[in-house]
Amino acid sequence: MSVNTFGHLFRVTTWGESHGPALGATVDGCPPNVPVTAEMLQVWLDKRRPGQNKNTTQRNEPDAVKILSGVFEDKTTGTPIQLMIENTDQRSRDYGEISQTFRPGHADITYHLKYGNRDYRGGGRSSARETAARVAAGGVAREAIKALVPGLEIKGYMTRMGDMEIDRAAFDWDAIEQNDFWIPNGPDKAAEWEAYLQSLRKAHDSVGAEIEVVARGVPAGIGAPVYGKLDTDLAAAMMSINAVKGVEIGEGMAAARLKGTENADEIYMGANGPEYSSNHAGGILGGISTGQDVVVRFAVKPTSSILTPRKSIRIDGTETEVITKGRHDPCVGIRAVPVAEAMMACVILDHLLLHRGQIGENQGTIG
Amino acid sequence: MSVNTFGHLFRVTTWGESHGPALGATVDGCPPNVPVTAEMLQVWLDKRRPGQNKNTTQRNEPDAVKILSGVFEDKTTGTPIQLMIENTDQRSRDYGEISQTFRPGHADITYHLKYGNRDYRGGGRSSARETAARVAAGGVAREAIKALVPGLEIKGYMTRMGDMEIDRAAFDWDAIEQNDFWIPNGPDKAAEWEAYLQSLRKAHDSVGAEIEVVARGVPAGIGAPVYGKLDTDLAAAMMSINAVKGVEIGEGMAAARLKGTENADEIYMGANGPEYSSNHAGGILGGISTGQDVVVRFAVKPTSSILTPRKSIRIDGTETEVITKGRHDPCVGIRAVPVAEAMMACVILDHLLLHRGQIGENQGTIG
Amino acid sequence: MSVNTFGHLFRVTTWGESHGPALGATVDGCPPNVPVTAEMLQVWLDKRRPGQNKNTTQRNEPDAVKILSGVFEDKTTGTPIQLMIENTDQRSRDYGEISQTFRPGHADITYHLKYGNRDYRGGGRSSARETAARVAAGGVAREAIKALVPGLEIKGYMTRMGDMEIDRAAFDWDAIEQNDFWIPNGPDKAAEWEAYLQSLRKAHDSVGAEIEVVARGVPAGIGAPVYGKLDTDLAAAMMSINAVKGVEIGEGMAAARLKGTENADEIYMGANGPEYSSNHAGGILGGISTGQDVVVRFAVKPTSSILTPRKSIRIDGTETEVITKGRHDPCVGIRAVPVAEAMMACVILDHLLLHRGQIGENQGTIG
Amino acid sequence: MSVNTFGHLFRVTTWGESHGPALGATVDGCPPNVPVTAEMLQVWLDKRRPGQNKNTTQRNEPDAVKILSGVFEDKTTGTPIQLMIENTDQRSRDYGEISQTFRPGHADITYHLKYGNRDYRGGGRSSARETAARVAAGGVAREAIKALVPGLEIKGYMTRMGDMEIDRAAFDWDAIEQNDFWIPNGPDKAAEWEAYLQSLRKAHDSVGAEIEVVARGVPAGIGAPVYGKLDTDLAAAMMSINAVKGVEIGEGMAAARLKGTENADEIYMGANGPEYSSNHAGGILGGISTGQDVVVRFAVKPTSSILTPRKSIRIDGTETEVITKGRHDPCVGIRAVPVAEAMMACVILDHLLLHRGQIGENQGTIG
Repeated sequence: MSVNTFGHLFRVTTWGESHGPALGATVDGCPPNVPVTAEMLQVWLDKRRPGQNKNTTQRNEPDAVKILSGVFEDKTTGTPIQLMIENTDQRSRDYGEISQTFRPGHADITYHLKYGNRDYRGGGRSSARETAARVAAGGVAREAIKALVPGLEIKGYMTRMGDMEIDRAAFDWDAIEQNDFWIPNGPDKAAEWEAYLQSLRKAHDSVGAEIEVVARGVPAGIGAPVYGKLDTDLAAAMMSINAVKGVEIGEGMAAARLKGTENADEIYMGANGPEYSSNHAGGILGGISTGQDVVVRFAVKPTSSILTPRKSIRIDGTETEVITKGRHDPCVGIRAVPVAEAMMACVILDHLLLHRGQIGENQGTIG
Repeated sequence: MSVNTFGHLFRVTTWGESHGPALGATVDGCPPNVPVTAEMLQVWLDKRRPGQNKNTTQRNEPDAVKILSGVFEDKTTGTPIQLMIENTDQRSRDYGEISQTFRPGHADITYHLKYGNRDYRGGGRSSARETAARVAAGGVAREAIKALVPGLEIKGYMTRMGDMEIDRAAFDWDAIEQNDFWIPNGPDKAAEWEAYLQSLRKAHDSVGAEIEVVARGVPAGIGAPVYGKLDTDLAAAMMSINAVKGVEIGEGMAAARLKGTENADEIYMGANGPEYSSNHAGGILGGISTGQDVVVRFAVKPTSSILTPRKSIRIDGTETEVITKGRHDPCVGIRAVPVAEAMMACVILDHLLLHRGQIGENQGTIG
Repeated sequence: MSVNTFGHLFRVTTWGESHGPALGATVDGCPPNVPVTAEMLQVWLDKRRPGQNKNTTQRNEPDAVKILSGVFEDKTTGTPIQLMIENTDQRSRDYGEISQTFRPGHADITYHLKYGNRDYRGGGRSSARETAARVAAGGVAREAIKALVPGLEIKGYMTRMGDMEIDRAAFDWDAIEQNDFWIPNGPDKAAEWEAYLQSLRKAHDSVGAEIEVVARGVPAGIGAPVYGKLDTDLAAAMMSINAVKGVEIGEGMAAARLKGTENADEIYMGANGPEYSSNHAGGILGGISTGQDVVVRFAVKPTSSILTPRKSIRIDGTETEVITKGRHDPCVGIRAVPVAEAMMACVILDHLLLHRGQIGENQGTIG
Repeated sequence: MSVNTFGHLFRVTTWGESHGPALGATVDGCPPNVPVTAEMLQVWLDKRRPGQNKNTTQRNEPDAVKILSGVFEDKTTGTPIQLMIENTDQRSRDYGEISQTFRPGHADITYHLKYGNRDYRGGGRSSARETAARVAAGGVAREAIKALVPGLEIKGYMTRMGDMEIDRAAFDWDAIEQNDFWIPNGPDKAAEWEAYLQSLRKAHDSVGAEIEVVARGVPAGIGAPVYGKLDTDLAAAMMSINAVKGVEIGEGMAAARLKGTENADEIYMGANGPEYSSNHAGGILGGISTGQDVVVRFAVKPTSSILTPRKSIRIDGTETEVITKGRHDPCVGIRAVPVAEAMMACVILDHLLLHRGQIGENQGTIG
């Protein structure tokens, strides 16, 4: 399978560079008759868009998505959907030094080594701008999920940003949309995070983050046993986002510290089927959903583009120091939230469709 | 792509249940003329095999691999390689209660919900025995890598088991093969781990673990930019192993706590090309290898099969308590080491082949 | 997608050489709970098997299929099904000259040029024996189709063998199973064909053939618009069979000679939906089934292995003459019939599954 | 694999409807550093474009291709190439009756039955306009081939149109570009064909055609043994083109009439390697190229859109008569020539890349 496509049946191929004429996503395998309009997708793009608040970059992209194919009379036709976002804010500038220098922590040097060329304008293909296309595709996935499993809800939120951590005891699902950091805590906490981030910005520094994404209402029984496990596909989905360095399902890395007696999610018979005493598993057993919340967590590294000088080299091998000016988020984790939600939506839709294609109505019953 | 196949060009499809006649791997896309014999593969299977020492289960499987196709006169032909391991130790027994009960933390309940059937004998397809087939396939990948990139070395080791942790200050690469836990520390440390594990066994408990796998000598420039990133494929590879709950590349989840100034791997010009001041990136930037060590870490949960009773339900919905008797490792992390090495070998070979197919000799030079 | 795998959701990977220990098929994506036993599959293998009558080769292979995985208590589990056929009749012999010589019309020379090696024993991977694995996989597909669409029937028959042609005016669907050539005509015609074939055998010659395969009862609306058209997949399926040189859907190559007024299949409203005045289309419009009979036709070239000497060269470039002794069918077209039926079954099942996965119950109604 | 994508490593996904805002191709897997500009691709689109001469439709589309991604400084980057062709000639009109009626021989009825919706404007996704995107993608493939195997030449030509047939005795490779029918014969023959076509047009009829495509200079040893055979992929490629009903390799369907002694391509040792007495095989043995010309032939049915009334039904089941007005070619075979060349280029590039990826330099030598 292609290294540029994600998914089994619901397949997303993103394309485009940050400073080319446009970027987008070719979305293949969406069921027909799903209501989709550009306006529906724009909602999610606006959530991701830089320039919204002072905690993300000031690049002024409208990020307006156009649907070029696969939708007729505001419904999907079942054929490939082409989503395009034109790049309107391509400031003309001199790339002389940048085109010859490798920024530490960027893909500049590996692109050069792999391809023998690179689009040095704003990171080209490795720019975080590529994730806009994912968000658009995720919007399509959300609408298809809505048609297949009404009530299934996907929500992401930050759980850590450097030294800042959310207060899980005060977890408030409804607060997430109320602050610039997508944290499930009240305005005081958000103000604390903002002060922290501004101090980093002033110090010409950046910071990493941890994001959690939860899917509620996922039917039991989707996923697959070995290589296309629901958790495998989620791990790949999150790791494919720029700057992500770790992915956890349920208990995650902490499982290494637990005993079997502590980790067991005991099973009870509830009114509507099996219930569990806990969710260490993150809603997935043997690669297949249990019906509990599906819980994924991941970490993004701090932005490499900082105003503090870092040592590096040029293509000709000479040494240099790099200060990355320009419009860069001090914490890319903020914008990773809607991207991760989009990836979660794509994975879940894919497995909902696989489940229908591979086994139809053969689900087992309990009780 | 199939949910039962792993890889882009070097493609591995494992098949088989723990208590069926046999299990194995269909290995597709191996280059021709690679020297491969059953004996070469057996070395790795013997490393993984239960019954070797008192810290793993006592199941007495010879796990002898047979090559059924794709190898002629001890060299690969370029056509599909079929590797088969017959199940010889299928103790005949009464599965009455087991066939009706869902063990907490196992895939029993999700297989039932997804498929409406399940092979309840020893876990069927979800048994850790499936990983024997991966180890055999990984053996083929290792030989092909050897032919393509002599000197490339892949090694895994445990870094944590519950409360036990390795001493990184005393890291000894050569000690790994000298102890039952594949830890990079001396015999005193190993003795400490063994005492800990035996105490857990006596307490009818189990424990999780953390494993690290390193690939040394990976050429710079392999990988891909977006969905087939080297780190994406490694994350998927590790997460596809039974019981894995988290995967990290380089700095991993800890990246969320770092600042940009701390996380930067500065670049210098060395005698043989670029060198780096550190390896927070784990050898991968933008999905493509830098030439540094590729470092992956993952956590496995504690074995769910324990002698301590856990609450559960039966297919008919009635409640019960489950004690899992039989031959079960108190720490499956031990045997995950050779499995993870095999998966790392498959991913790296796959990307070595993709690199040849997609870009030939177009690599950029520096200096 | 792999060059050794066929299908989108129902995926068949065949493996094995004619003179290795075994050959078989890894069948992935079969729905669960389909009744399958080795006996059910054996029926189709026996139909294909050489040595059945004097018109096919005398190789005495029982071709007994074993199910190694994916079937539990005589039902598919939904996980990969491994089908193995052991090679029991591997006559030991001296391959000295054969291993150095390229037989004209065989893949000997191209395998050598591609791989730099080849399994010269009986053709290795390019042997028609590979098709036994397809027939076994096709048997699984037939059972799954039976479960999904009862009454769907797939039947193949010869329509031409060199100068011999069937009498379409006397087409008898029930006669097909009554003669050694699978022709839809009575015993007189079959006797005529047999005399013709025996005369060719005596003349140390071989002959080509044309086979037609029909699927009746295929529901309208399966297939896909562009690259995964039902006709595209059928063409690929048939062309992948050894010795096939041409494939036709419906009117086939003759469509080049027709006018639009002649070729139109006019549409009427019947009691149970649309009906057509004719079936030039072969049951497929725009890649999607109409509900009429799906009709595929293909030609196989005459066996290259003949006792009449042909000029060729050796690996060292010296010239030679080749007479192919051994057990070879004078017309491979006879055994191509069950193979083509198997491929048709695989393609149709694949599209039945895709239809469920991609669009569920969204089919349009008429009237 | 997706039903909307073609190719293994060089993968083309076309998208778009005839009357939507745009259509195009997502081209994935092109090697980096291949010189590509919009002008280079436009050459091939202009060849295919309707409105060029009186034998094709008068739709006045400039068919101007834009490269949206994957090309930087006029060279491919190795990342996905997005090719877009905007639909500029979307005449606004009343589709009332057309939207309710199924045209005989069109995909109208099957799209309706499969998807429960259809873009009735000009055929939507099933329009021949989709092939413009293939031609653009084929242009990229041609440039990559040029970089990998200089001298490899791909040319298509018509061999039959209804009663008209080319004169093979007077075959003139250079005449192909000199006439409106791409026939390899002189102007007298072309005039004859034109008179024939005009008479059909006046009679409100259409006609089928046969096209042959030849690739010269294909290196020996590309292809694959079983399912990804070079001939299998070519058959699929041609059958995926609208209106194609049959595909032949080399001798094609006529192989059914031949004896083994007639069909053998004997092998000699020439100055530069093996030579053959004939090319019944069409340049492919066992799915792998021999180094001879690769020869594919296919038939397209007559255009279904004719001015002669044909019986049909409406969505509500009532009967009607259909006369298709508008701009329709009386012989779509003319425009199929550049499309088939493009598909041949894609298949050959794909196998050139697979050959590098899978076996590197392992080719065998002779002599």
